[in-house]
Amino acid sequence: MFNYVVEPRFSETDALGHINNTVVPAWFEQGRLEIFKIFNPSLALKKWNLILKKMEVDYVSQIYLFSPVEIRTGIASLGNSSLVIHQEVWQKEKLAARGNCVMVHFDYEKQSKAPIPPAIREQLDALIIKS
Amino acid sequence: MFNYVVEPRFSETDALGHINNTVVPAWFEQGRLEIFKIFNPSLALKKWNLILKKMEVDYVSQIYLFSPVEIRTGIASLGNSSLVIHQEVWQKEKLAARGNCVMVHFDYEKQSKAPIPPAIREQLDALIIKS
Amino acid sequence: MFNYVVEPRFSETDALGHINNTVVPAWFEQGRLEIFKIFNPSLALKKWNLILKKMEVDYVSQIYLFSPVEIRTGIASLGNSSLVIHQEVWQKEKLAARGNCVMVHFDYEKQSKAPIPPAIREQLDALIIKS
Amino acid sequence: MFNYVVEPRFSETDALGHINNTVVPAWFEQGRLEIFKIFNPSLALKKWNLILKKMEVDYVSQIYLFSPVEIRTGIASLGNSSLVIHQEVWQKEKLAARGNCVMVHFDYEKQSKAPIPPAIREQLDALIIKS
Repeated sequence: MFNYVVEPRFSETDALGHINNTVVPAWFEQGRLEIFKIFNPSLALKKWNLILKKMEVDYVSQIYLFSPVEIRTGIASLGNSSLVIHQEVWQKEKLAARGNCVMVHFDYEKQSKAPIPPAIREQLDALIIKS
Repeated sequence: MFNYVVEPRFSETDALGHINNTVVPAWFEQGRLEIFKIFNPSLALKKWNLILKKMEVDYVSQIYLFSPVEIRTGIASLGNSSLVIHQEVWQKEKLAARGNCVMVHFDYEKQSKAPIPPAIREQLDALIIKS
Repeated sequence: MFNYVVEPRFSETDALGHINNTVVPAWFEQGRLEIFKIFNPSLALKKWNLILKKMEVDYVSQIYLFSPVEIRTGIASLGNSSLVIHQEVWQKEKLAARGNCVMVHFDYEKQSKAPIPPAIREQLDALIIKS
Repeated sequence: MFNYVVEPRFSETDALGHINNTVVPAWFEQGRLEIFKIFNPSLALKKWNLILKKMEVDYVSQIYLFSPVEIRTGIASLGNSSLVIHQEVWQKEKLAARGNCVMVHFDYEKQSKAPIPPAIREQLDALIIKS
């Protein structure tokens, strides 16, 4: 799994005193950049070839300011032209949130979804989370 | 269903040229305020009694700048101490995103989940989406 | 002056219980879209010809949730190739924040700042705030 | 000066392809936390004793994705009950933005501004930027 450490920001808190729920999807998006790199090594915006189809988040415990958070990112399963990414937020060695999202591999020239090429699939295989 | 109209912001776009995926959860949170009002009519932050347990979003089509967006919010189902809220984003009469979330009714004094009181349940019943 | 009404969002509050200071620049950016339209009537992103050079905000009083906010936008002064935009945030008939920003008119083909054309200047003149 | 390194986020870009201007104030707020710690070592939210009075940002050059950014924070000048904080954003050894803000020391019990105590002033002195 990829690990990405982020310091929660003051502007990410809300009036209830902890990190607002809507911040987790932005952290997860950032955590997925390492997987985007496999599909698009130059991270060229004009060749962006992964589309977010579906996202779900389970909120397990409150996330607080003033303590770093770790975003863990791995692959739950691989389909023909899509993959399920699993992500977790940890703070002070406690699971705070987790979620899966479905990303679709997209061929911009053909404007349609496209099978994941074997060379990419091989790299993704190494990131599959063993249960 | 409750309807809430919002103008997408320039700061909500991303480098791919449309509204960033992580914005939808913030719009949905805002759309749920009308349901929070039923549980907490004064919207007093110290008595906040609804907790987000789980959220999922399906991204159906791109959302663009310079055209207002409508957030529709209704209730998918009612449990003993929780409810499932269904929400949709519409732009130019096209469904752009939809999602469900699970909210838990919480008793702050007892620090535990609590049954939804009958008077509140009655108001929520009127918001249940008929299929 | 242009007026733009926005409902502060739950996700825009912070742990001190009111709207976070960093939200005001995003509201102001949105309020400036009407001025961008004068420079770029189709709001085409590829022809974006106004660049933010400098921004300042005075925070006058706290901004709260659950009450709409009005963003007022006018022109403080017009230069040869730049303009100073004045903006204010009002909530419950009280000035909450105000600020000026300097925008530079830019010629993308020449990659340099460019004089504001007379036809645009005429429309901007009508927005100059009289003291 | 304090240094704080942050990776620009995908959700912080805008449709023009770089980091949106409104993101810089949030990075600056985060960079000031080290100064807040001097005033409020426990960072207790209920004793928050610094209020942002005024903020200004000069945008010097575009900020891009996929390259870390350094936020530098020091003190420009010290008044009786307020201070001017100077901050800069650097990316790839290039100044991208800079700004000053005025923070006021506040006594929550008296609900008014209050002189900066000598012990705090001493620590702040060490952070004054020499020209």
